[in-house]
Amino acid sequence: MSGWVRVAGLGPGRDDLVTDEVRAVLIEATDVIGYIPYVRRVPPRDGLTLHATDNRVEVDRATHALELAAGGRRVVVVSSGDPGVFAMASALFEALENGPAEWLDTDIRILPGITAMLAAAARLGAPLGHDFCAINLSDNLKPWSLIETRLRLAAQAGFAMAFYNPRSNARPHQFSEALKILREECGPDRLISFARDVSKPTEQLRTVTLSEATPEMADMRTVIIVGNADTRRIGQHVYTPRQVV
Amino acid sequence: MSGWVRVAGLGPGRDDLVTDEVRAVLIEATDVIGYIPYVRRVPPRDGLTLHATDNRVEVDRATHALELAAGGRRVVVVSSGDPGVFAMASALFEALENGPAEWLDTDIRILPGITAMLAAAARLGAPLGHDFCAINLSDNLKPWSLIETRLRLAAQAGFAMAFYNPRSNARPHQFSEALKILREECGPDRLISFARDVSKPTEQLRTVTLSEATPEMADMRTVIIVGNADTRRIGQHVYTPRQVV
Repeated sequence: MSGWVRVAGLGPGRDDLVTDEVRAVLIEATDVIGYIPYVRRVPPRDGLTLHATDNRVEVDRATHALELAAGGRRVVVVSSGDPGVFAMASALFEALENGPAEWLDTDIRILPGITAMLAAAARLGAPLGHDFCAINLSDNLKPWSLIETRLRLAAQAGFAMAFYNPRSNARPHQFSEALKILREECGPDRLISFARDVSKPTEQLRTVTLSEATPEMADMRTVIIVGNADTRRIGQHVYTPRQVV
Repeated sequence: MSGWVRVAGLGPGRDDLVTDEVRAVLIEATDVIGYIPYVRRVPPRDGLTLHATDNRVEVDRATHALELAAGGRRVVVVSSGDPGVFAMASALFEALENGPAEWLDTDIRILPGITAMLAAAARLGAPLGHDFCAINLSDNLKPWSLIETRLRLAAQAGFAMAFYNPRSNARPHQFSEALKILREECGPDRLISFARDVSKPTEQLRTVTLSEATPEMADMRTVIIVGNADTRRIGQHVYTPRQVV
Protein backbone atom coordinates (compact mmCIF):
# COMPACT_ATOMS: atom_id res chain seq x y z
CA MET A 1 0.00 0.00 0.00
CA SER A 2 1.41 3.36 -0.88
CA GLY A 3 0.95 6.15 1.62
CA TRP A 4 0.26 9.82 1.11
CA VAL A 5 -0.15 13.11 2.92
CA ARG A 6 -2.88 15.65 2.27
CA VAL A 7 -2.89 18.97 4.08
CA ALA A 8 -6.53 19.99 4.09
CA GLY A 9 -8.20 23.31 4.90
CA LEU A 10 -11.37 23.01 6.95
CA GLY A 11 -12.37 26.64 6.40
CA PRO A 12 -13.29 29.11 9.15
CA GLY A 13 -15.54 26.81 11.14
CA ARG A 14 -18.94 26.05 9.68
CA ASP A 15 -19.34 22.73 7.90
CA ASP A 16 -20.97 24.20 4.78
CA LEU A 17 -17.71 26.07 4.11
CA VAL A 18 -15.71 22.83 3.72
CA THR A 19 -15.10 21.70 0.13
CA ASP A 20 -16.08 18.28 -1.21
CA GLU A 21 -12.43 17.77 -2.14
CA VAL A 22 -11.54 17.89 1.54
CA ARG A 23 -14.47 15.66 2.55
CA ALA A 24 -13.38 13.08 0.00
CA VAL A 25 -9.85 12.74 1.38
CA LEU A 26 -11.15 12.52 4.93
CA ILE A 27 -13.14 9.47 3.81
CA GLU A 28 -10.03 7.82 2.32
CA ALA A 29 -7.76 8.64 5.28
CA THR A 30 -6.35 6.14 7.76
CA ASP A 31 -4.98 8.93 9.99
CA VAL A 32 -5.96 12.49 10.75
CA ILE A 33 -3.43 14.77 12.43
CA GLY A 34 -3.92 18.26 13.76
CA TYR A 35 -4.51 20.75 16.50
CA ILE A 36 -7.15 19.47 18.95
CA PRO A 37 -10.14 21.66 17.92
CA TYR A 38 -9.64 20.91 14.22
CA VAL A 39 -9.33 17.15 14.71
CA ARG A 40 -12.50 17.32 16.81
CA ARG A 41 -14.36 18.40 13.66
CA VAL A 42 -13.61 15.06 11.96
CA PRO A 43 -16.19 12.35 12.80
CA PRO A 44 -14.56 9.20 14.26
CA ARG A 45 -15.04 5.92 12.36
CA ASP A 46 -13.59 2.41 12.29
CA GLY A 47 -10.20 2.31 10.61
CA LEU A 48 -9.46 5.99 11.24
CA THR A 49 -6.90 7.02 13.86
CA LEU A 50 -7.22 10.58 15.14
CA HIS A 51 -4.00 12.26 16.34
CA ALA A 52 -4.90 15.47 18.17
CA THR A 53 -1.98 17.57 19.38
CA ASP A 54 -1.33 20.92 20.97
CA ASN A 55 -0.95 24.05 18.86
CA ARG A 56 2.75 24.78 19.27
CA VAL A 57 4.16 21.67 17.64
CA GLU A 58 3.53 22.27 13.93
CA VAL A 59 6.78 20.76 12.67
CA ASP A 60 6.55 17.72 14.99
CA ARG A 61 3.05 17.14 13.70
CA ALA A 62 4.20 17.48 10.09
CA THR A 63 7.12 15.10 10.70
CA HIS A 64 4.73 12.58 12.21
CA ALA A 65 2.52 12.81 9.12
CA LEU A 66 5.49 12.12 6.81
CA GLU A 67 6.62 9.17 8.97
CA LEU A 68 3.16 7.63 8.84
CA ALA A 69 2.95 8.11 5.06
CA ALA A 70 6.38 6.47 4.66
CA GLY A 71 4.86 3.49 6.46
CA GLY A 72 2.02 3.30 3.96
CA ARG A 73 -0.64 5.27 5.83
CA ARG A 74 -3.02 7.73 4.19
CA VAL A 75 -2.65 10.84 6.31
CA VAL A 76 -4.71 14.03 6.35
CA VAL A 77 -3.20 16.94 8.25
CA VAL A 78 -6.15 19.18 9.08
CA SER A 79 -5.77 22.92 9.26
CA SER A 80 -8.28 25.67 9.86
CA GLY A 81 -8.95 28.07 7.03
CA ASP A 82 -6.60 27.50 4.11
CA PRO A 83 -3.51 25.41 4.92
CA GLY A 84 -1.31 27.68 2.80
CA VAL A 85 -2.09 30.88 4.75
CA PHE A 86 -0.32 30.96 8.12
CA ALA A 87 -1.20 27.32 8.69
CA MET A 88 0.17 23.78 8.24
CA ALA A 89 1.30 23.63 4.58
CA SER A 90 4.62 25.42 5.05
CA ALA A 91 5.29 23.44 8.23
CA LEU A 92 4.91 20.24 6.23
CA PHE A 93 7.48 21.34 3.67
CA GLU A 94 9.84 22.42 6.44
CA ALA A 95 9.59 18.91 7.89
CA LEU A 96 10.12 17.44 4.42
CA GLU A 97 13.24 19.55 3.92
CA ASN A 98 14.65 18.49 7.29
CA GLY A 99 13.76 14.82 6.89
CA PRO A 100 15.48 11.87 5.16
CA ALA A 101 15.97 12.11 1.39
CA GLU A 102 13.60 9.21 0.71
CA TRP A 103 10.68 11.30 1.97
CA LEU A 104 11.05 13.56 -1.09
CA ASP A 105 9.07 11.05 -3.14
CA THR A 106 6.10 11.16 -0.76
CA ASP A 107 2.79 11.76 -2.50
CA ILE A 108 1.85 15.15 -1.01
CA ARG A 109 -1.01 17.44 -1.92
CA ILE A 110 -2.32 20.62 -0.35
CA LEU A 111 -6.10 21.07 -0.48
CA PRO A 112 -7.22 24.69 -0.28
CA GLY A 113 -9.92 26.05 2.02
CA ILE A 114 -11.69 29.30 2.82
CA THR A 115 -9.13 31.31 4.78
CA ALA A 116 -10.22 33.53 7.68
CA MET A 117 -9.61 36.90 6.01
CA LEU A 118 -11.80 36.00 3.03
CA ALA A 119 -14.58 34.62 5.23
CA ALA A 120 -14.37 37.80 7.33
CA ALA A 121 -14.29 40.06 4.27
CA ALA A 122 -17.41 38.36 2.90
CA ARG A 123 -19.31 38.89 6.16
CA LEU A 124 -18.27 42.54 6.27
CA GLY A 125 -18.95 43.32 2.61
CA ALA A 126 -15.93 43.63 0.32
CA PRO A 127 -13.10 45.40 2.19
CA LEU A 128 -10.46 43.46 0.20
CA GLY A 129 -11.93 44.41 -3.17
CA HIS A 130 -8.77 46.22 -4.28
CA ASP A 131 -5.07 45.28 -3.86
CA PHE A 132 -4.36 43.98 -0.36
CA CYS A 133 -1.86 42.18 1.84
CA ALA A 134 -1.97 39.55 4.58
CA ILE A 135 0.36 39.86 7.57
CA ASN A 136 0.79 37.51 10.52
CA LEU A 137 1.21 39.87 13.47
CA SER A 138 2.78 37.20 15.68
CA ASP A 139 6.49 37.62 16.27
CA ASN A 140 7.00 33.95 17.10
CA LEU A 141 8.68 33.40 13.74
CA LYS A 142 10.01 36.82 12.77
CA PRO A 143 11.30 39.92 14.51
CA TRP A 144 8.75 42.54 15.56
CA SER A 145 10.81 45.25 13.83
CA LEU A 146 10.13 43.51 10.50
CA ILE A 147 6.40 43.58 11.21
CA GLU A 148 6.60 47.32 11.89
CA THR A 149 8.44 47.91 8.62
CA ARG A 150 5.86 45.86 6.72
CA LEU A 151 2.97 47.79 8.23
CA ARG A 152 4.50 51.09 7.14
CA LEU A 153 5.34 49.92 3.62
CA ALA A 154 1.92 48.28 3.19
CA ALA A 155 0.22 51.53 4.22
CA GLN A 156 2.43 53.54 1.87
CA ALA A 157 1.62 51.14 -0.96
CA GLY A 158 -2.10 51.75 -0.41
CA PHE A 159 -2.88 48.12 0.37
CA ALA A 160 -5.88 47.11 2.41
CA MET A 161 -4.47 44.80 5.07
CA ALA A 162 -5.58 41.62 6.78
CA PHE A 163 -3.94 40.65 10.07
CA TYR A 164 -3.79 37.13 11.45
CA ASN A 165 -2.89 36.35 15.08
CA PRO A 166 -3.13 40.01 16.07
CA ARG A 167 -2.81 39.63 19.80
CA SER A 168 -2.02 37.07 22.47
CA ASN A 169 -1.56 37.06 26.21
CA ALA A 170 2.16 36.53 25.68
CA ARG A 171 2.53 39.84 23.81
CA PRO A 172 -0.26 42.22 24.85
CA HIS A 173 1.58 45.44 23.92
CA GLN A 174 2.43 44.70 20.31
CA PHE A 175 -0.98 45.19 18.83
CA SER A 176 -1.20 48.53 20.58
CA GLU A 177 2.09 49.43 18.88
CA ALA A 178 0.66 48.28 15.53
CA LEU A 179 -2.37 50.53 15.98
CA LYS A 180 -0.08 53.48 16.69
CA ILE A 181 1.87 52.86 13.48
CA LEU A 182 -1.34 52.52 11.48
CA ARG A 183 -2.69 55.80 12.86
CA GLU A 184 0.55 57.53 11.89
CA GLU A 185 0.54 56.11 8.39
CA CYS A 186 -3.19 56.03 7.59
CA GLY A 187 -4.71 58.81 9.73
CA PRO A 188 -7.45 58.59 12.36
CA ASP A 189 -10.43 58.04 10.03
CA ARG A 190 -9.29 54.87 8.28
CA LEU A 191 -11.73 51.99 8.83
CA ILE A 192 -10.63 48.90 10.76
CA SER A 193 -12.79 45.80 11.20
CA PHE A 194 -12.48 43.15 13.89
CA ALA A 195 -13.98 39.78 12.97
CA ARG A 196 -14.01 37.10 15.65
CA ASP A 197 -15.09 33.48 15.25
CA VAL A 198 -16.33 34.10 11.72
CA SER A 199 -19.06 31.67 10.61
CA LYS A 200 -19.43 30.24 14.13
CA PRO A 201 -22.42 30.80 16.45
CA THR A 202 -20.18 33.09 18.53
CA GLU A 203 -19.30 35.31 15.54
CA GLN A 204 -18.71 39.00 16.34
CA LEU A 205 -18.12 41.73 13.75
CA ARG A 206 -17.21 45.30 14.56
CA THR A 207 -15.99 48.16 12.35
CA VAL A 208 -14.60 51.38 13.78
CA THR A 209 -12.13 54.06 12.77
CA LEU A 210 -8.46 53.79 13.72
CA SER A 211 -8.97 56.59 16.25
CA GLU A 212 -11.70 54.53 17.94
CA ALA A 213 -9.82 51.21 17.81
CA THR A 214 -8.43 49.78 21.07
CA PRO A 215 -6.17 46.78 21.60
CA GLU A 216 -8.90 44.96 23.57
CA MET A 217 -10.99 44.66 20.42
CA ALA A 218 -8.67 41.88 19.23
CA ASP A 219 -7.59 38.48 20.51
CA MET A 220 -6.06 35.38 18.89
CA ARG A 221 -9.47 34.35 17.50
CA THR A 222 -9.86 37.69 15.68
CA VAL A 223 -8.90 38.47 12.13
CA ILE A 224 -8.51 42.18 11.44
CA ILE A 225 -9.04 44.04 8.19
CA VAL A 226 -7.80 47.59 7.71
CA GLY A 227 -9.19 49.36 4.67
CA ASN A 228 -7.32 51.48 2.18
CA ALA A 229 -7.92 55.23 1.81
CA ASP A 230 -11.08 54.61 -0.26
CA THR A 231 -12.69 51.98 1.98
CA ARG A 232 -16.12 53.15 3.12
CA ARG A 233 -19.45 52.11 4.57
CA ILE A 234 -22.54 51.68 2.46
CA GLY A 235 -25.62 50.69 4.46
CA GLN A 236 -24.45 47.98 6.85
CA HIS A 237 -21.58 46.96 4.61
CA VAL A 238 -17.89 47.89 4.42
CA TYR A 239 -16.31 47.87 1.00
CA THR A 240 -13.33 49.01 -1.00
CA PRO A 241 -14.06 50.25 -4.53
CA ARG A 242 -12.25 48.55 -7.38
CA GLN A 243 -11.22 51.84 -8.90
CA VAL A 244 -8.56 54.30 -7.76
CA VAL A 245 -9.05 57.75 -9.17
CA MET B 1 -42.10 37.80 -1.23
CA SER B 2 -38.92 39.52 -0.16
CA GLY B 3 -36.01 39.48 -2.54
CA TRP B 4 -32.32 39.16 -1.88
CA VAL B 5 -28.92 39.20 -3.54
CA ARG B 6 -26.13 36.73 -2.86
CA VAL B 7 -22.74 37.15 -4.51
CA ALA B 8 -21.33 33.67 -4.63
CA GLY B 9 -17.82 32.41 -5.34
CA LEU B 10 -17.66 29.34 -7.56
CA GLY B 11 -13.98 28.70 -6.86
CA PRO B 12 -11.29 28.19 -9.50
CA GLY B 13 -13.24 25.81 -11.72
CA ARG B 14 -13.68 22.27 -10.45
CA ASP B 15 -17.03 21.43 -8.87
CA ASP B 16 -15.54 19.81 -5.76
CA LEU B 17 -14.07 23.22 -4.85
CA VAL B 18 -17.52 24.82 -4.54
CA THR B 19 -18.88 25.13 -0.99
CA ASP B 20 -22.23 23.73 0.14
CA GLU B 21 -23.18 27.25 1.21
CA VAL B 22 -22.98 28.34 -2.43
CA ARG B 23 -24.82 25.24 -3.68
CA ALA B 24 -27.64 25.92 -1.22
CA VAL B 25 -28.30 29.46 -2.46
CA LEU B 26 -28.20 28.32 -6.07
CA ILE B 27 -31.06 25.95 -5.20
CA GLU B 28 -33.10 28.78 -3.67
CA ALA B 29 -32.41 31.29 -6.45
CA THR B 30 -34.93 32.54 -8.99
CA ASP B 31 -32.21 34.32 -11.02
CA VAL B 32 -28.53 33.76 -11.65
CA ILE B 33 -26.48 36.61 -13.10
CA GLY B 34 -22.87 36.56 -14.24
CA TYR B 35 -20.22 36.38 -16.89
CA ILE B 36 -21.08 33.76 -19.51
CA PRO B 37 -18.62 30.96 -18.50
CA TYR B 38 -19.60 31.20 -14.83
CA VAL B 39 -23.35 31.12 -15.50
CA ARG B 40 -22.72 28.10 -17.71
CA ARG B 41 -21.59 26.20 -14.61
CA VAL B 42 -25.07 26.50 -13.05
CA PRO B 43 -27.44 23.68 -14.14
CA PRO B 44 -30.68 25.04 -15.69
CA ARG B 45 -33.96 24.13 -14.00
CA ASP B 46 -37.62 25.19 -14.05
CA GLY B 47 -38.17 28.46 -12.23
CA LEU B 48 -34.57 29.61 -12.64
CA THR B 49 -33.70 32.40 -15.07
CA LEU B 50 -30.07 32.53 -16.18
CA HIS B 51 -28.72 35.96 -17.16
CA ALA B 52 -25.34 35.53 -18.84
CA THR B 53 -23.51 38.71 -19.81
CA ASP B 54 -20.19 39.80 -21.20
CA ASN B 55 -17.20 40.41 -18.91
CA ARG B 56 -16.86 44.19 -19.11
CA VAL B 57 -20.19 45.15 -17.58
CA GLU B 58 -19.70 44.40 -13.87
CA VAL B 59 -21.62 47.40 -12.55
CA ASP B 60 -24.51 46.97 -15.02
CA ARG B 61 -24.76 43.35 -13.92
CA ALA B 62 -24.72 44.35 -10.24
CA THR B 63 -27.38 47.03 -10.86
CA HIS B 64 -29.54 44.46 -12.61
CA ALA B 65 -29.21 42.13 -9.61
CA LEU B 66 -30.33 44.89 -7.21
CA GLU B 67 -33.28 45.81 -9.47
CA LEU B 68 -34.44 42.21 -9.58
CA ALA B 69 -34.11 41.86 -5.78
CA ALA B 70 -36.14 45.06 -5.32
CA GLY B 71 -38.86 43.35 -7.33
CA GLY B 72 -38.83 40.36 -4.96
CA ARG B 73 -36.51 38.02 -6.87
CA ARG B 74 -33.86 35.84 -5.19
CA VAL B 75 -30.74 36.64 -7.14
CA VAL B 76 -27.34 34.95 -7.11
CA VAL B 77 -24.52 36.86 -8.79
CA VAL B 78 -21.94 34.22 -9.64
CA SER B 79 -18.26 35.01 -9.60
CA SER B 80 -15.23 32.83 -10.17
CA GLY B 81 -12.91 32.28 -7.24
CA ASP B 82 -13.87 34.40 -4.26
CA PRO B 83 -16.24 37.29 -5.04
CA GLY B 84 -14.30 39.61 -2.70
CA VAL B 85 -10.97 39.26 -4.51
CA PHE B 86 -10.93 41.22 -7.80
CA ALA B 87 -14.42 39.99 -8.58
CA MET B 88 -18.09 40.95 -8.26
CA ALA B 89 -18.56 41.86 -4.58
CA SER B 90 -17.10 45.39 -4.81
CA ALA B 91 -19.00 46.00 -8.04
CA LEU B 92 -22.24 45.17 -6.22
CA PHE B 93 -21.55 47.71 -3.48
CA GLU B 94 -20.60 50.31 -6.10
CA ALA B 95 -24.00 49.76 -7.74
CA LEU B 96 -25.68 49.95 -4.32
CA GLU B 97 -23.93 53.25 -3.58
CA ASN B 98 -24.98 54.70 -6.93
CA GLY B 99 -28.55 53.42 -6.76
CA PRO B 100 -31.76 54.71 -5.11
CA ALA B 101 -31.75 55.03 -1.31
CA GLU B 102 -34.39 52.31 -0.90
CA TRP B 103 -31.94 49.71 -2.18
CA LEU B 104 -29.88 50.17 1.00
CA ASP B 105 -32.26 47.83 2.83
CA THR B 106 -31.71 45.01 0.33
CA ASP B 107 -30.84 41.69 1.95
CA ILE B 108 -27.28 41.21 0.60
CA ARG B 109 -24.74 38.57 1.48
CA ILE B 110 -21.36 37.68 0.03
CA LEU B 111 -20.52 33.97 -0.01
CA PRO B 112 -16.78 33.26 -0.07
CA GLY B 113 -15.04 30.85 -2.41
CA ILE B 114 -11.59 29.48 -3.13
CA THR B 115 -9.77 32.33 -4.85
CA ALA B 116 -7.32 31.64 -7.69
CA MET B 117 -4.12 32.53 -5.81
CA LEU B 118 -4.91 30.08 -2.99
CA ALA B 119 -5.87 27.30 -5.39
CA ALA B 120 -2.64 27.95 -7.30
CA ALA B 121 -0.55 28.11 -4.13
CA ALA B 122 -1.96 24.77 -3.00
CA ARG B 123 -1.08 23.12 -6.32
CA LEU B 124 2.45 24.54 -6.20
CA GLY B 125 3.11 23.76 -2.52
CA ALA B 126 3.00 26.67 -0.09
CA PRO B 127 4.53 29.76 -1.74
CA LEU B 128 2.23 32.08 0.27
CA GLY B 129 3.17 30.55 3.63
CA HIS B 130 4.57 33.82 4.96
CA ASP B 131 3.25 37.41 4.67
CA PHE B 132 2.05 38.16 1.14
CA CYS B 133 0.08 40.57 -1.03
CA ALA B 134 -2.37 40.32 -3.90
CA ILE B 135 -2.19 42.81 -6.77
CA ASN B 136 -4.44 43.15 -9.79
CA LEU B 137 -2.00 43.97 -12.62
CA SER B 138 -4.72 45.35 -14.88
CA ASP B 139 -4.66 49.12 -15.28
CA ASN B 140 -8.34 49.27 -16.28
CA LEU B 141 -9.23 50.72 -12.86
CA LYS B 142 -6.02 52.35 -11.65
CA PRO B 143 -3.01 54.06 -13.21
CA TRP B 144 -0.07 51.87 -14.23
CA SER B 145 2.30 54.10 -12.27
CA LEU B 146 0.51 53.06 -9.05
CA ILE B 147 1.01 49.40 -9.93
CA GLU B 148 4.74 50.04 -10.41
CA THR B 149 4.96 51.76 -7.03
CA ARG B 150 3.12 48.89 -5.36
CA LEU B 151 5.41 46.29 -6.91
CA ARG B 152 8.47 48.10 -5.58
CA LEU B 153 7.06 48.63 -2.09
CA ALA B 154 5.79 45.06 -1.89
CA ALA B 155 9.24 43.77 -2.83
CA GLN B 156 10.90 46.05 -0.28
CA ALA B 157 8.47 44.83 2.39
CA GLY B 158 9.51 41.24 1.69
CA PHE B 159 6.02 40.12 0.68
CA ALA B 160 5.45 37.14 -1.53
CA MET B 161 3.11 38.42 -4.25
CA ALA B 162 0.16 37.07 -6.17
CA PHE B 163 -0.83 38.76 -9.41
CA TYR B 164 -4.28 38.60 -10.96
CA ASN B 165 -4.97 39.60 -14.58
CA PRO B 166 -1.27 39.81 -15.38
CA ARG B 167 -1.51 40.27 -19.12
CA SER B 168 -4.01 40.89 -21.88
CA ASN B 169 -3.89 41.55 -25.59
CA ALA B 170 -4.86 45.17 -24.91
CA ARG B 171 -1.69 45.79 -22.87
CA PRO B 172 1.02 43.35 -23.91
CA HIS B 173 3.97 45.47 -22.75
CA GLN B 174 2.99 46.05 -19.14
CA PHE B 175 3.76 42.63 -17.78
CA SER B 176 7.18 42.86 -19.39
CA GLU B 177 7.64 46.12 -17.47
CA ALA B 178 6.49 44.44 -14.25
CA LEU B 179 9.08 41.69 -14.74
CA LYS B 180 11.79 44.30 -15.20
CA ILE B 181 10.82 46.01 -11.93
CA LEU B 182 10.73 42.68 -10.10
CA ARG B 183 14.20 41.76 -11.38
CA GLU B 184 15.53 45.11 -10.17
CA GLU B 185 13.94 44.77 -6.72
CA CYS B 186 14.25 41.02 -6.11
CA GLY B 187 17.26 39.92 -8.18
CA PRO B 188 17.46 37.31 -10.94
CA ASP B 189 17.15 34.18 -8.78
CA ARG B 190 13.79 34.88 -7.15
CA LEU B 191 11.22 32.17 -7.95
CA ILE B 192 8.13 33.03 -9.99
CA SER B 193 5.31 30.58 -10.67
CA PHE B 194 2.77 30.74 -13.48
CA ALA B 195 -0.45 28.84 -12.80
CA ARG B 196 -2.98 28.67 -15.62
CA ASP B 197 -6.48 27.18 -15.45
CA VAL B 198 -5.88 25.84 -11.96
CA SER B 199 -8.05 22.81 -11.11
CA LYS B 200 -9.28 22.47 -14.71
CA PRO B 201 -8.29 19.68 -17.13
CA THR B 202 -6.16 22.25 -18.98
CA GLU B 203 -4.19 23.21 -15.85
CA GLN B 204 -0.57 24.25 -16.42
CA LEU B 205 1.97 24.98 -13.68
CA ARG B 206 5.45 26.32 -14.26
CA THR B 207 8.04 27.72 -11.86
CA VAL B 208 11.16 29.52 -13.06
CA THR B 209 13.51 32.21 -11.79
CA LEU B 210 12.87 35.86 -12.59
CA SER B 211 15.82 35.79 -14.98
CA GLU B 212 14.17 32.95 -16.90
CA ALA B 213 10.65 34.43 -16.88
CA THR B 214 9.24 35.84 -20.11
CA PRO B 215 6.03 37.79 -20.71
CA GLU B 216 4.64 35.00 -22.88
CA MET B 217 4.41 32.71 -19.84
CA ALA B 218 1.33 34.65 -18.69
CA ASP B 219 -2.09 35.45 -20.09
CA MET B 220 -5.41 36.55 -18.57
CA ARG B 221 -6.14 32.99 -17.39
CA THR B 222 -2.87 32.87 -15.43
CA VAL B 223 -2.36 33.72 -11.79
CA ILE B 224 1.26 34.46 -10.92
CA ILE B 225 3.00 33.96 -7.60
CA VAL B 226 6.37 35.55 -6.89
CA GLY B 227 8.12 34.21 -3.81
CA ASN B 228 9.93 36.15 -1.14
CA ALA B 229 13.69 35.94 -0.62
CA ASP B 230 13.32 32.62 1.28
CA THR B 231 11.00 30.88 -1.17
CA ARG B 232 12.58 27.65 -2.41
CA ARG B 233 11.98 24.30 -4.06
CA ILE B 234 11.81 21.08 -2.11
CA GLY B 235 11.24 18.03 -4.28
CA GLN B 236 8.54 19.02 -6.76
CA HIS B 237 7.11 21.66 -4.45
CA VAL B 238 7.63 25.40 -4.05
CA TYR B 239 7.29 26.78 -0.56
CA THR B 240 8.00 29.77 1.64
CA PRO B 241 9.14 28.98 5.19
CA ARG B 242 7.11 30.44 8.03
CA GLN B 243 10.20 31.74 9.76
CA VAL B 244 12.39 34.70 8.86
CA VAL B 245 15.84 34.50 10.42
